[in-house]
Amino acid sequence: MKSLILGFVASLLVFAAQAESTATGDLGLIIERATGSVLLVDQSERAVVTRIEGLGDLSHASLVYSPDERFAYVFGRDGGLTKVDIVARKIVNRIIQAGNSIGGAISDNGRLVAVSNYEPGGVRVFDADTLELVADIPTGSKTIGLVDAPGRKFVFTMWDTGETWIADMSGKAPEIIKIEDMGANPYDALITGNGRTYITGLFGEDGMTALDLWDKTPKPIRVLPGYGRGQEKLPVYKMPHLEGWALAGREFVLPAVGHHEVLWVDADELIETGRTPTHGQPVFAMARPDGRQVWVNFAHPLNDTIQVIDSVTKKIIHQFKPGPAVLHMEFTPRGHEVWISVRDANKVMIYDTHTFEKLQEIDADSPSGIFFTARAHKTGL
Amino acid sequence: MKSLILGFVASLLVFAAQAESTATGDLGLIIERATGSVLLVDQSERAVVTRIEGLGDLSHASLVYSPDERFAYVFGRDGGLTKVDIVARKIVNRIIQAGNSIGGAISDNGRLVAVSNYEPGGVRVFDADTLELVADIPTGSKTIGLVDAPGRKFVFTMWDTGETWIADMSGKAPEIIKIEDMGANPYDALITGNGRTYITGLFGEDGMTALDLWDKTPKPIRVLPGYGRGQEKLPVYKMPHLEGWALAGREFVLPAVGHHEVLWVDADELIETGRTPTHGQPVFAMARPDGRQVWVNFAHPLNDTIQVIDSVTKKIIHQFKPGPAVLHMEFTPRGHEVWISVRDANKVMIYDTHTFEKLQEIDADSPSGIFFTARAHKTGL
Repeated sequence: MKSLILGFVASLLVFAAQAESTATGDLGLIIERATGSVLLVDQSERAVVTRIEGLGDLSHASLVYSPDERFAYVFGRDGGLTKVDIVARKIVNRIIQAGNSIGGAISDNGRLVAVSNYEPGGVRVFDADTLELVADIPTGSKTIGLVDAPGRKFVFTMWDTGETWIADMSGKAPEIIKIEDMGANPYDALITGNGRTYITGLFGEDGMTALDLWDKTPKPIRVLPGYGRGQEKLPVYKMPHLEGWALAGREFVLPAVGHHEVLWVDADELIETGRTPTHGQPVFAMARPDGRQVWVNFAHPLNDTIQVIDSVTKKIIHQFKPGPAVLHMEFTPRGHEVWISVRDANKVMIYDTHTFEKLQEIDADSPSGIFFTARAHKTGL
Repeated sequence: MKSLILGFVASLLVFAAQAESTATGDLGLIIERATGSVLLVDQSERAVVTRIEGLGDLSHASLVYSPDERFAYVFGRDGGLTKVDIVARKIVNRIIQAGNSIGGAISDNGRLVAVSNYEPGGVRVFDADTLELVADIPTGSKTIGLVDAPGRKFVFTMWDTGETWIADMSGKAPEIIKIEDMGANPYDALITGNGRTYITGLFGEDGMTALDLWDKTPKPIRVLPGYGRGQEKLPVYKMPHLEGWALAGREFVLPAVGHHEVLWVDADELIETGRTPTHGQPVFAMARPDGRQVWVNFAHPLNDTIQVIDSVTKKIIHQFKPGPAVLHMEFTPRGHEVWISVRDANKVMIYDTHTFEKLQEIDADSPSGIFFTARAHKTGL
């Protein structure tokens, strides 16, 4: 009896000790793409807390956080939607919600989680507590570029039909506004941090298309049409990601598709303000949170390199090789450090963004996306 | 012996149950100015978690959060610096660091907490872990407008001498750049969310003065000099606060001193773009996080009212009376709700920012400042 009690006390102590350290503001998850696992990490300690396994196919995964920075909703390539409790450090729910999914979003009030799917094409919306289906929105197309917008809205775009839909989930049933003629084969999209401007990248034509979501009847606005005109387009080894599109000061920085350059665009006028030639085809062009620097990684076979661009001069101020297959970067929320996934080195590297000094290496199994909990407080991340 | 063990188990269970719910992303603290206490609140639950007492004189208090959203550093009028652990829900350290303090800031890496003081005039910098003094920077003046800037910098301004100093704390000793001629009697300041532009409000003259902190040798830039010219200035019952100065789209919204209006200023050109007449002398003009709305409260005796301005039309779209002595507002990080302190009703009111519906009332003892933990991830808050 006494040993039973002591064992119980001991396990309580372990639990209490774990739980005691669960302020969640500086934690994060790193996708381990080959093993279906995520690493729970601590930014301040620059260290791994633990590994959580059993998330299925994470070969092209992303995630969002609940407003309390406790739960992560992980969107797997296999249609899996996995709810991870980073306080209890375990999976608390997991469903297979479609055959092939591409990304997700969480409503501004944290109550609804939406997933965009290729197969069957459309968006499904789930209760964030229970993962029960709240709304099924078939689109008849592969669906991409799903983001959340203020007022319990989700915005998403159709690869096949070139339409963007805005689903307002603030009432009982979704109210949907459909915008046609967004362009040929939109492949990804972003929403600005203020939730006002939605921009789709196009694969079927050179250029992008924007919507002003503050307009009651948003109309497609062409951005940089034919930006590659007169240049030979290179084979595209890896489509750039648009969620990383950066707002530096009053300009966006966009990776060009099939070209060795990033494009600078005035955020209000949506006109080109400059180009910076780069080492390779950019995949992510991400602004440090203060917008002073833009960090760029590249497609295979030049994916061992990072270039850092000064946003005032638009010139490259630093270049280095973290290692083979640099897949993703994540800045600390106030931008003093950056974490970089180097897949084929099985490492995540941490750098000081002011001195460019390497501060730490962390072991990880084929790391890809890095997601800090501060994303919980941002629109469109 | 057995009852001792059971008692111990029971207290562990209580502790574990408390600690278990400590994801900290949606928590906040509300200053109870009359009683030297703070309320720990939960945004998602719209509820009080607990009250923490013993923080001294909180008649003009503010606070900042550690990067992990676990610790709050509360700056009291009496020179008290109190470290509150919101996971353990108690004060873990408290010092009296000066005779009369006015505000504080935390470095981008979370290691340093700085406090600006009237008496003795200057800034003191403390180790965020231990509250041990790291640097003492006397200024020979009442010191106001202290903010953090990227790269372990603090920026602050002298009421008496009209100087702004930039203290770089990234090396062993502070390196200080001094900028003269900021204007007559600066009384408060703000830094933009990207850490680039620092703006001081002036009491001794009509107008403001800005610095471009990305400039290696920042020079004073006059903003709206003589904005009240030709108008009769009213007696100033309450100085407006500048930390609430709002960035809505590409414009700042600034409360005018001694006038019934807010001023719109282009954030890059720093020229006036409009004025909106208001109900009274504005105290806070705060943008909803998406910048679409600006919420304004007013000085005594018109301080029972809130006006909401649309940032596109610059027109007032909503006006209501939350109750007597509306002192402060805080938006949820993604802007769907706002919490409002109504001091003389001893209530905090929570509203939906899209429908303007009141969602909840919370009892609080003379509430003033409301601070959600998401501030941990922002520059200058």
